[in-house]
Amino acid sequence: MAEKCEEVESREWYLASYAPEGVPTSDNLKLRTVRLSLASDSIPDGHLAVELLYVSVDPYLRSRMSGRLDGLDSDQYPLNQVITAFGIGKVIRSKDSEFEEGDVVLHPYFPVAEYCVMTSHMLKKIDPKAGISLPDFLSCLGVPGFAAWVGIEVLGDPKPGSNVFISAASGGVGMFAGQLAKLRGCRVIGSTGSDDKVKLMKDEFGYDDGFNYHKETDYDAALSRYFPNGIDLYLDNVGGKMLEAVLNHVNKYARIPLCGMVSQYNKVWTEREGVRNLLNMVGKEVRMEGFMLLSHLHRFGEFAAAMGGYMKQGKVKSKNKINLGIESFLESLASVFSSSNHGKLVIQVKPYV
Amino acid sequence: MAEKCEEVESREWYLASYAPEGVPTSDNLKLRTVRLSLASDSIPDGHLAVELLYVSVDPYLRSRMSGRLDGLDSDQYPLNQVITAFGIGKVIRSKDSEFEEGDVVLHPYFPVAEYCVMTSHMLKKIDPKAGISLPDFLSCLGVPGFAAWVGIEVLGDPKPGSNVFISAASGGVGMFAGQLAKLRGCRVIGSTGSDDKVKLMKDEFGYDDGFNYHKETDYDAALSRYFPNGIDLYLDNVGGKMLEAVLNHVNKYARIPLCGMVSQYNKVWTEREGVRNLLNMVGKEVRMEGFMLLSHLHRFGEFAAAMGGYMKQGKVKSKNKINLGIESFLESLASVFSSSNHGKLVIQVKPYV
Repeated sequence: MAEKCEEVESREWYLASYAPEGVPTSDNLKLRTVRLSLASDSIPDGHLAVELLYVSVDPYLRSRMSGRLDGLDSDQYPLNQVITAFGIGKVIRSKDSEFEEGDVVLHPYFPVAEYCVMTSHMLKKIDPKAGISLPDFLSCLGVPGFAAWVGIEVLGDPKPGSNVFISAASGGVGMFAGQLAKLRGCRVIGSTGSDDKVKLMKDEFGYDDGFNYHKETDYDAALSRYFPNGIDLYLDNVGGKMLEAVLNHVNKYARIPLCGMVSQYNKVWTEREGVRNLLNMVGKEVRMEGFMLLSHLHRFGEFAAAMGGYMKQGKVKSKNKINLGIESFLESLASVFSSSNHGKLVIQVKPYV
Repeated sequence: MAEKCEEVESREWYLASYAPEGVPTSDNLKLRTVRLSLASDSIPDGHLAVELLYVSVDPYLRSRMSGRLDGLDSDQYPLNQVITAFGIGKVIRSKDSEFEEGDVVLHPYFPVAEYCVMTSHMLKKIDPKAGISLPDFLSCLGVPGFAAWVGIEVLGDPKPGSNVFISAASGGVGMFAGQLAKLRGCRVIGSTGSDDKVKLMKDEFGYDDGFNYHKETDYDAALSRYFPNGIDLYLDNVGGKMLEAVLNHVNKYARIPLCGMVSQYNKVWTEREGVRNLLNMVGKEVRMEGFMLLSHLHRFGEFAAAMGGYMKQGKVKSKNKINLGIESFLESLASVFSSSNHGKLVIQVKPYV
């Protein structure tokens, strides 16, 4: 057991080279093993030794690997350093009186490493007996749940009966966004990348209907059929051609919160798909607005209370795909850019015991 | 004098055919002469006979001639009917007790005809002795002044010291927008289509600086030079490549009110210039918002009081290009899409006496 050793072997993912285009490969992201001392005098005051339990795999991580300032404006991971991601760990040594061994903690920038020594700053304790599973803390109560809540509740603010469209509808953000819009009394349609996922979003997440964009490749025709009365709110997770098609179907005063553009991350900007019909935003008086979660952190408590309540009442369901072992990180990241991904992707690095 | 005749000859512009692409030509817009009875029993109750004095020539008129629903979502002019535009006329017969002969009146949809009989509904009396010239009622107090006010004051809402960029900066909207932003204490840079107009916007409208986009064709490089600290507010009047370049220079929380896209009106949407870097809106959390004046009419009184005050105090200057005679309408409309246009274009159909 790690708790009893003075030194551990720890596997960690580091960035060997930047990936300006395409999905990152094993040339860019590499796994290495380091030895880490857990001896008391090697942990500074106010620091903790933590064993990683779960790590959240989200599309935005990719934008930290491009080696240039990109549309998400994210800090780039330094080369040869361990990368970081939203994660949950267990404290195994503490040099901070606020934390003790065995505490389960959340951090938005956990090193993607089996073990680490880190400052307690920004660490948040969570209660593993609160009736919410640990993966759900990274899912409905984590990045995708909060993004869905900001997009629908804060920026979208739809009325009952509004026509809502959500792309990447069975992904991490989409599954919660659809359910939140249904709770507001909206008609909700989604697009996703396979028939199975269309079934999933209808059967599990309560979407009124949806389509597989690999089959219905004429997005304009599809939207005409699914939105005979136009679109009032589009939560955009993909950008590009789907966003352009939506702008041909928007109603007066439609809102388009831009959550991310998963179809565009793997291209340099000059190769991205241009949106040619922004003029439609003038006549329809459309508001399109990009958002990042950090700017909304002051509302995280309000979000967590609402979403936690929905979860406990069974009003919002979560579907997490759990990959096992830290070694699965690279293929997990690649899968969020393919159509194989269902729900929210989380890696279980170690089981919580 | 028209007032003494029972019948007048009236020249009027009508739409002979739609112009899906390009600047409308004499195949599309034609002038004809009709005879109009001014006999008392040929004017219905609640109607007036009006002689047109001034007509406002604005880029948005073009979108009513394309023959299809277009980005501005404007009603199309019916074929073979006289077209309409914002104008000022003089009452020459009245069958409405609220109006009398000699009243000067404003209407957003005046027939572009020397004479007409029209309902008094939506007619607004103006005072020609109020210290504001009649063309200025179509300029600083008309469509472009109100558009500038909504774009800067309502949607843009910049702070003192904000970096503001305005395209089509010496045109009708741009000249007022720049002055309003300066009154708010901003640093204001404009783009326009000739060196003369760059001089005009700096010397007359108080812009801090500006550039000729025909000479500085690398917009990205130009914006790097003029905005070393980035752009906080961009009032977009042109769309296309300039909008795309701006999105490479936006600051966090930048706002982009979309007033119109004069570079795009003469193209069908699939031929328009695609904007490839909307992803930048996510990281920078940019709000882009189209607007039409009708949705803001409830604030017209507030606008007119503010703008009228600025005019009388000499804080806002107006520059109107006056073309003479109703026959100049077609070439006037074409000129607002070329670089030859300075300030706000108004046609004097008849001098006010």
